[in-house]
Amino acid sequence: MRLPHKQTTKDIDFAIIGVPSDAGASFRTGQREGPAAIRKVSALLRHHNPILNVSPFEHLSGVDYGDLSVIPGYIEDSFKEIEKDLLPVVEAGVVPILLGGDHAITLPELRVVAKKHGPIALVHFDAHSDTSDEYFGKPYNHGTPFARAVEENLLLVNHSIQVGLRGSTYSENHLEIPKKLGFEIITMAELQEMGVEKLIQRIQKRIGDKKVFLSFDVDFVDPAFAPGTGTPEVGGVTSGEAITIIRGLKDLNFVGFDIVEVLPALDPSEITALLASNIAYEFISILAYQKNQVV
Amino acid sequence: MRLPHKQTTKDIDFAIIGVPSDAGASFRTGQREGPAAIRKVSALLRHHNPILNVSPFEHLSGVDYGDLSVIPGYIEDSFKEIEKDLLPVVEAGVVPILLGGDHAITLPELRVVAKKHGPIALVHFDAHSDTSDEYFGKPYNHGTPFARAVEENLLLVNHSIQVGLRGSTYSENHLEIPKKLGFEIITMAELQEMGVEKLIQRIQKRIGDKKVFLSFDVDFVDPAFAPGTGTPEVGGVTSGEAITIIRGLKDLNFVGFDIVEVLPALDPSEITALLASNIAYEFISILAYQKNQVV
Amino acid sequence: MRLPHKQTTKDIDFAIIGVPSDAGASFRTGQREGPAAIRKVSALLRHHNPILNVSPFEHLSGVDYGDLSVIPGYIEDSFKEIEKDLLPVVEAGVVPILLGGDHAITLPELRVVAKKHGPIALVHFDAHSDTSDEYFGKPYNHGTPFARAVEENLLLVNHSIQVGLRGSTYSENHLEIPKKLGFEIITMAELQEMGVEKLIQRIQKRIGDKKVFLSFDVDFVDPAFAPGTGTPEVGGVTSGEAITIIRGLKDLNFVGFDIVEVLPALDPSEITALLASNIAYEFISILAYQKNQVV
Amino acid sequence: MRLPHKQTTKDIDFAIIGVPSDAGASFRTGQREGPAAIRKVSALLRHHNPILNVSPFEHLSGVDYGDLSVIPGYIEDSFKEIEKDLLPVVEAGVVPILLGGDHAITLPELRVVAKKHGPIALVHFDAHSDTSDEYFGKPYNHGTPFARAVEENLLLVNHSIQVGLRGSTYSENHLEIPKKLGFEIITMAELQEMGVEKLIQRIQKRIGDKKVFLSFDVDFVDPAFAPGTGTPEVGGVTSGEAITIIRGLKDLNFVGFDIVEVLPALDPSEITALLASNIAYEFISILAYQKNQVV
Amino acid sequence: MRLPHKQTTKDIDFAIIGVPSDAGASFRTGQREGPAAIRKVSALLRHHNPILNVSPFEHLSGVDYGDLSVIPGYIEDSFKEIEKDLLPVVEAGVVPILLGGDHAITLPELRVVAKKHGPIALVHFDAHSDTSDEYFGKPYNHGTPFARAVEENLLLVNHSIQVGLRGSTYSENHLEIPKKLGFEIITMAELQEMGVEKLIQRIQKRIGDKKVFLSFDVDFVDPAFAPGTGTPEVGGVTSGEAITIIRGLKDLNFVGFDIVEVLPALDPSEITALLASNIAYEFISILAYQKNQVV
Amino acid sequence: MRLPHKQTTKDIDFAIIGVPSDAGASFRTGQREGPAAIRKVSALLRHHNPILNVSPFEHLSGVDYGDLSVIPGYIEDSFKEIEKDLLPVVEAGVVPILLGGDHAITLPELRVVAKKHGPIALVHFDAHSDTSDEYFGKPYNHGTPFARAVEENLLLVNHSIQVGLRGSTYSENHLEIPKKLGFEIITMAELQEMGVEKLIQRIQKRIGDKKVFLSFDVDFVDPAFAPGTGTPEVGGVTSGEAITIIRGLKDLNFVGFDIVEVLPALDPSEITALLASNIAYEFISILAYQKNQVV
Repeated sequence: MRLPHKQTTKDIDFAIIGVPSDAGASFRTGQREGPAAIRKVSALLRHHNPILNVSPFEHLSGVDYGDLSVIPGYIEDSFKEIEKDLLPVVEAGVVPILLGGDHAITLPELRVVAKKHGPIALVHFDAHSDTSDEYFGKPYNHGTPFARAVEENLLLVNHSIQVGLRGSTYSENHLEIPKKLGFEIITMAELQEMGVEKLIQRIQKRIGDKKVFLSFDVDFVDPAFAPGTGTPEVGGVTSGEAITIIRGLKDLNFVGFDIVEVLPALDPSEITALLASNIAYEFISILAYQKNQVV
Repeated sequence: MRLPHKQTTKDIDFAIIGVPSDAGASFRTGQREGPAAIRKVSALLRHHNPILNVSPFEHLSGVDYGDLSVIPGYIEDSFKEIEKDLLPVVEAGVVPILLGGDHAITLPELRVVAKKHGPIALVHFDAHSDTSDEYFGKPYNHGTPFARAVEENLLLVNHSIQVGLRGSTYSENHLEIPKKLGFEIITMAELQEMGVEKLIQRIQKRIGDKKVFLSFDVDFVDPAFAPGTGTPEVGGVTSGEAITIIRGLKDLNFVGFDIVEVLPALDPSEITALLASNIAYEFISILAYQKNQVV
Repeated sequence: MRLPHKQTTKDIDFAIIGVPSDAGASFRTGQREGPAAIRKVSALLRHHNPILNVSPFEHLSGVDYGDLSVIPGYIEDSFKEIEKDLLPVVEAGVVPILLGGDHAITLPELRVVAKKHGPIALVHFDAHSDTSDEYFGKPYNHGTPFARAVEENLLLVNHSIQVGLRGSTYSENHLEIPKKLGFEIITMAELQEMGVEKLIQRIQKRIGDKKVFLSFDVDFVDPAFAPGTGTPEVGGVTSGEAITIIRGLKDLNFVGFDIVEVLPALDPSEITALLASNIAYEFISILAYQKNQVV
Repeated sequence: MRLPHKQTTKDIDFAIIGVPSDAGASFRTGQREGPAAIRKVSALLRHHNPILNVSPFEHLSGVDYGDLSVIPGYIEDSFKEIEKDLLPVVEAGVVPILLGGDHAITLPELRVVAKKHGPIALVHFDAHSDTSDEYFGKPYNHGTPFARAVEENLLLVNHSIQVGLRGSTYSENHLEIPKKLGFEIITMAELQEMGVEKLIQRIQKRIGDKKVFLSFDVDFVDPAFAPGTGTPEVGGVTSGEAITIIRGLKDLNFVGFDIVEVLPALDPSEITALLASNIAYEFISILAYQKNQVV
Repeated sequence: MRLPHKQTTKDIDFAIIGVPSDAGASFRTGQREGPAAIRKVSALLRHHNPILNVSPFEHLSGVDYGDLSVIPGYIEDSFKEIEKDLLPVVEAGVVPILLGGDHAITLPELRVVAKKHGPIALVHFDAHSDTSDEYFGKPYNHGTPFARAVEENLLLVNHSIQVGLRGSTYSENHLEIPKKLGFEIITMAELQEMGVEKLIQRIQKRIGDKKVFLSFDVDFVDPAFAPGTGTPEVGGVTSGEAITIIRGLKDLNFVGFDIVEVLPALDPSEITALLASNIAYEFISILAYQKNQVV
Repeated sequence: MRLPHKQTTKDIDFAIIGVPSDAGASFRTGQREGPAAIRKVSALLRHHNPILNVSPFEHLSGVDYGDLSVIPGYIEDSFKEIEKDLLPVVEAGVVPILLGGDHAITLPELRVVAKKHGPIALVHFDAHSDTSDEYFGKPYNHGTPFARAVEENLLLVNHSIQVGLRGSTYSENHLEIPKKLGFEIITMAELQEMGVEKLIQRIQKRIGDKKVFLSFDVDFVDPAFAPGTGTPEVGGVTSGEAITIIRGLKDLNFVGFDIVEVLPALDPSEITALLASNIAYEFISILAYQKNQVV
């Protein structure tokens, strides 16, 4: 997006932050190259968002904060690094827009955001619930972050919602797991039946005026539109629908965003990275829209 | 799918069987690598199918039977090999789920199935009718299998249906050919008009309670969702629609399935193979669902 | 399409003409390889168009005229070459079907067509308006052709229409620019609301019986269906919708067509080139349909 | 090479002829796309060969004769087609330069050449001897052509030589097979010891003044230099060495050439096709050099 | 290599074992897919090794033991898994031939081998010494295994040698580090000066009759011959030279081998995997040669 | 190389500068992405050069100056931009290390350097002489820069040398053209005969103590080692030889360097970009070595 590259939190509204970690990836790996790929194609983004009718960089001040440190092979230490590096940003009141990285990174992000704001609501778009208790006998990886987030009291789970779940599951009652944790669940089958408009209302109603973090796994979108990802599932939304849904949430009270699981090695035409950069652009546009509204 | 690899037909319900042949491919070739590619990504499939609400591997016993023998350059001899190797599976009452390979292989498959069951109904999803009388002056290749199958009396053609035909054709009356052979035809244009629900009813009505073989050419699906194939046609269904259609046929009396024309060399993100593995998973799920119903 | 390769204008109705230029490409380049890629996959096209019910090569006489000359690094001289080479074709009453190349080439094409026919109407499918006043301080490139065409009086701008605009824009009033020039604009958001049928009517009404040139940028289509292009925008139409729209215009009075911005280096499965070849096939089919109607 | 495309044998010295067959490929397939790939990159070749100091297209008249017909799935019928199409070229005294296709095609080529010239000498560059008695129980494929050629009396086997054999073999005495058939064999290990200069002398001595056919399998060259091929073997010559060897044979009495086993799907940088086009260019240069010598 | 797939150690001489770990990869990742890629192309290997004149599968009994367990994100726990799974193989006197995976896996391998045999000699081919004290502040990753191996007393370091070091280094005295640990070092520059024959003698002399483990990082070979790897360095040996060197060590007393750092995502023509499979084949051939000698 | 990114010329010794232009590319295009690709893989370079025994970033101060402006489609205007942007760097006494871009960019570079230093010597490594009088009737593109440089009196042509010329040529006397302009020429055939050591001496002798600019076209290197380039020629040097040659010139009096014609779209394994980054590293190392010598 051709933002200034600097590690500052002074007088800025948002920061684009890469989290080049794939330590939590169970199947395919290479998500560490996601942030670089998203930045590269973000050169295609332009000044004005005509749908929300905002020119985000006029209303907001933002930086490209660079990448957080991670330690390959040591996911728990990587989390500590991420938390340490992210905390000053969040503490300064800057809204972080994080580019993954596999989905495991959302846990340390939520830890930092909750340290600042207390437990928060979550809007989670994904083909998978990512609420398994463990994988390979281990508590931290890209299949478990939201189980941990609930256990660690980082979420207002009664105001949190997961959207887009589909595909085969590990067990018969797999979709019961997030429900038992307290999440509202909208599967892809339900989404198709209700349509995008009603989905937006459901999310708005669930979140209300709570502070909310939006976590977007690109596998929420169909593999035709987002082929470059770690665990694709056929039968997702189109990229146009994804962007419409996000724009529909423009009045929520966001305290952070991430977009995860872009895997450039499987994205030869760069359309997954392009989609991710557009989604990040919508996040920024929403912040600009909200600032405009206030004024 | 991490099934046991063994060539047995004892006490099993279904067998996954690769047919690595591309001897019948007229344009692009490399479909012989289809079975390996489908197996590779099938590691993404999990235990439970939440839509049909079955855990197929609990209710069914299945094996990965490996690949049948083929002889490059000798399609007619390859057919004999396929028939010889497949016959004991079908004779044992095991339902074969065959992974192609180009579409020519469906002919020897039907020969074997008809040897066991007599003439059977056919549900055929494809952008092309594959009922040409000949290509290059020859009777056997991926443009002719269903013309041969009718001639050889392998089909209950009055209970057979072809779905999804589209694109430019070899001659003005090309779509009349399968109709004259006795098939019911639903073109892609007709499908779009009637919708998925009505299509399922049309197929159910056509097949009734006959024993039926389902043949799925991945080019039935739009090239955006299935780019890795030999003769793609723009304007097909989405992968989500394809799976919904197949699930809708869960009460038919299946005696065999195939999924053909996956071409890995043109599938850099592996989404075509992923789709094919999901379709095979639905086939297995249907068998499990039916076994459940009986109990 | 296996047309005869010759540079003749005698007794022919249409000519397929490559314009291997990417001198106007601002971001990614390599569109010069577009014509070769489209020709390669056009071998998949067949004799008969069952939807328009015409066998175009029976009713029409056409040639593959080869590629026009271009001069890398010298866009203005390239335009002169294109105009010089294209003029005899258009003067002879042959309808040109031009394969790009980046979108800058439409300007010299329109100059030639207008020299023969006077100012003409334009139907322009694209994610972008391409009516910027300049890029990099220069008047000629793939972001400006339609601004120049209006200035040079090549268009009946009151009978011209741009369809599919979307994505972020260079400035707040960017969509006002084409409107001020006189174009009717239908954004992608508006298209989704009105649907394909109503869009066709709007275009028909706008064009009326004027002589019309159709310019099709493949980025009108969503990147899932057309990944191989220079400046993709998420959220476009499907390839099936694109073809339906074009067919819907079968009664317009066409004097030329182009299909531009195919970039093979980003099209590993060749689906973008396949789509472009299908669109060119529809152009030819429309000409055949019209000739049929007259008879 | 931008030669005129026409199917004529009148007043021409050589003809470039594609043989888009991969019916004989045992492992990987897609060699049918070899001729198109070689032609595409041949645009990089220029007018003059400074090493042999000839401008081949000044001294010789040649055409691009197009592709011969083949029938996928029917290798024996394909051979008949190839023979039928190639015969008029060879009968007219034109030297054929054939672009494969898998190596099985050399057999029908030799049949035609021997029909005109009687049994001929062979210079064969390859990692493999291709003299197996059968593969998959069949006599015709890319592992057997030279066994058949000897049986059919097409070769002056006492004046024939195979160069570059290496890699693991099917049996302990595998390298004895071609020796028993009468070939002289120079393995890659022997080539490395003797060097390029001595190799050239050995070949010259073996062939003498006999009429000779040169068959060049790109896997003679190391996979680093020719990755796009069906059965690569590590440890081959460099592309520079290959060209030096061929130039060293400039005084032999050639009646035909082929270059086979280019597999574009595994040649993403097109360097294998580039090498093949350079080798074909050396063949033409040798013919020009010889014509010059005569004058 | 089409070996039987079973997890047995009974009556076998060697076992091919995958170690699909990339937890230690500092730069690029995806080495976890190395074992599958090597196995896939190993279908090109044949029965007999004509240079060592052995048919390894006649003289030896071997299995494909499958893959060892690893835990993404937890390198130290992965090491424990690898050790636990590998121990029974080594304890049974089976020679393990391990397919990586990144180079970090050599440490747990050496732990197991040393548990059985006591400290052993090491022949290590690599562009890098991999003897850093730490990376990212951590002791275990692909830059440190041989520092750890010395500290843990797993090596007879006075009989160990590293060959092929080249490229830029982390610090001025970086090449002193392995020397201080006790290794003999032969840089690529030294190798080029001494030649392959003398290198073999130097290695033989260094190792003597000690039990020895051979660790082969594919980046020892030049990137032209092995592009698919994590940290390539220009200026390495050719693949032919690599194989000659390994064969030259046929009389050493091997107790284990590995071949590491194959990264399929960067190996589009599969030549790196092909090289790795050939190197593994040479390892087996050496074992067969030695068994033959004894008899 | 993880250099600081800033546009300063104060207190620095060298500046890495991208020139993302492909306006001069006659055949393949996309060299504009070369600088980004080289920078990406330069993360693999480390602190110390053990062959020259220098730690360049300790002895020298350098910056990554970013990319110069270019104007697609307007090569002559692009030259003016390049000259305008580069002049302050050169005027400040900073040694520029320029990353192309196609080879046409060397002309404006030489203009700037000669403006500061007067006519300079040239060491030019390339498969092609690039001294054509014109291409497509135009004076400026990647086939002509050194003809223009001589005409414009930018070079001490009697102290200039071109190394590595090979491949087919446009005309019989093509290699005479640079000789007539005054260059010394060493063809690849001559290089192979004389060897690397003697080549270095020849270059040293030719240049003497003149101020010299080194221009390195990656197609000097064989396509196996540098596949990602616009006009590859088989039969070049290895990457190891290329680096040895450059190091051998460590005592010349350099005033500038460029490395051109990296084309990432044809470099799937990134080995061409890796080679280019290593060559740039050697340039920096030479500057460091020279500074060391002075001290």
